Formats: sequence, structure tokens, C-alpha cells
Amino acid sequence: MASIFTKIIKGEIPSYKIAEDEKFYAFLDINPNSAGHTLCIPKIEVDKVLDLDEETYMGLMAFSRKIGKAIEAAIPCNRVGITVIGLEVPHVHVHLIPLHSMKDATFQHKTTLSKDDFLAIAEKIKAKL
Amino acid sequence: MASIFTKIIKGEIPSYKIAEDEKFYAFLDINPNSAGHTLCIPKIEVDKVLDLDEETYMGLMAFSRKIGKAIEAAIPCNRVGITVIGLEVPHVHVHLIPLHSMKDATFQHKTTLSKDDFLAIAEKIKAKL
Repeated sequence: MASIFTKIIKGEIPSYKIAEDEKFYAFLDINPNSAGHTLCIPKIEVDKVLDLDEETYMGLMAFSRKIGKAIEAAIPCNRVGITVIGLEVPHVHVHLIPLHSMKDATFQHKTTLSKDDFLAIAEKIKAKL
Repeated sequence: MASIFTKIIKGEIPSYKIAEDEKFYAFLDINPNSAGHTLCIPKIEVDKVLDLDEETYMGLMAFSRKIGKAIEAAIPCNRVGITVIGLEVPHVHVHLIPLHSMKDATFQHKTTLSKDDFLAIAEKIKAKL
């Protein structure tokens, strides 16, 4: 069965898309640690990040760097953190999280945003790409 | 002033070293989220991961992949997580964390290990490199 992220890539589930190329897709996390929290995923469906072939892993990290720099330019924060956990959705995803304090990196505190907030944040980040 | 990590690279502060090459250094985190928690750092002292030049960033991610695969082979766990936060030590460091549950990824729960534990863990990981 296709993962929820594969359905997002295919447009079967809507997302606040930030960027897409032939191999990777970036969109806003709808349960964000902080405003601007973005997920970068490979289009191939692999569960564990270290099981990605080297080319895809390196491509994902390069793609995440580009998106992370746009987030850092668009969202006031101390810096953008990078996290790969993957215990919930079995499809590799890199969390890019605007960090204001350690709290934003713990995944224990979530931020509630409206649809308009998400749309505005996505536009701000895309404008920095 | 040199960061604590630069002092570790220079051997002025001891560490449980896992690996080292011309540009990068890996050692066990002495306040680990879980046994096997390792830090990978570039030898150049830069505060924020997204401020690294592209070559160093990509080199650090490739180095971290190699070390992460050795940890995953050496330490029984669900998978190895990858996290870059950097709010405490102003010298880029990639956390590689053996994850058993989400708790290990929150940085809110720490594991106490003896010197002998650290030495045994370092040997196990190095044997998989």
C-alpha cells in the first residue's frame, strides 16, 4: 500500500507544497513543532534513511539544504534544525524545523496554525527559493 | 576561543573516538540519549549547519551515513536517527542516535553509562566500520 507521503506526492492527499523536482518533494508538516516546519522526502518509498542508496541519500541531503536555507531566510528563528526519525511513517522524511529554543527540537510541543497561516508560510518560503 | 569540539579533535579533551579522516571526526556523546549515541563533526569550526559550504556539508552527511550504518550494525535498535540542532555548542555536530522508541529522539531522556560501557560501545561500532 502506498504510504501517506506517496499519496501526497501524487496529489491524492493535499499538501502545502514548497518545492518538487524529479526525485524529491518538500511540503509543510501539518502538525508542526514550529511555524515553517517542513518535510523533505524522496519520491521513492524507503522506510529507513540509512537504507537509501548513496545517490538518493546524498540527493535528499542536498535538496534539504536548499529548502533549509530558504526557510532560514523566510522565517525568523535562531537556525533551522535537521532531524530524521521515521518511527511513525515508513517513508524517509527529513524534518527541517525553525528553532527558537530547544523546545522546538523535542517533538513534544506542537504549534496550531490555520489554513491561511500555512498558505502564507508556504508562500514566504517559496519566495526565498 | 576554540570550541569544546575543536579541543576534542586536537586531543586536548579526551573522547571515545569512533573515526576520523582529514575533514571529519566522530565520537560518542558523553550525555547520550541512548547507548551508541554518536556525534559527527567537521574539523572546521562553523556554528550553523546550513552555513557550511556545500562541499563540507555534503562531506559531513556522507561521513555521517558511513558512521550511522556502522552504529546500526553494532547496536540493536529500530533504526539510527539523524539530528542537527546546535543550540548549545557553536560547532556543527550531527547526532546519530540508536532509536528504540520516540523517547530516544526527544533529548529529554538521557542514559547513564560507565567508562567501560563507553569503551565497549566504541569498540563494537568501530568493528563494523
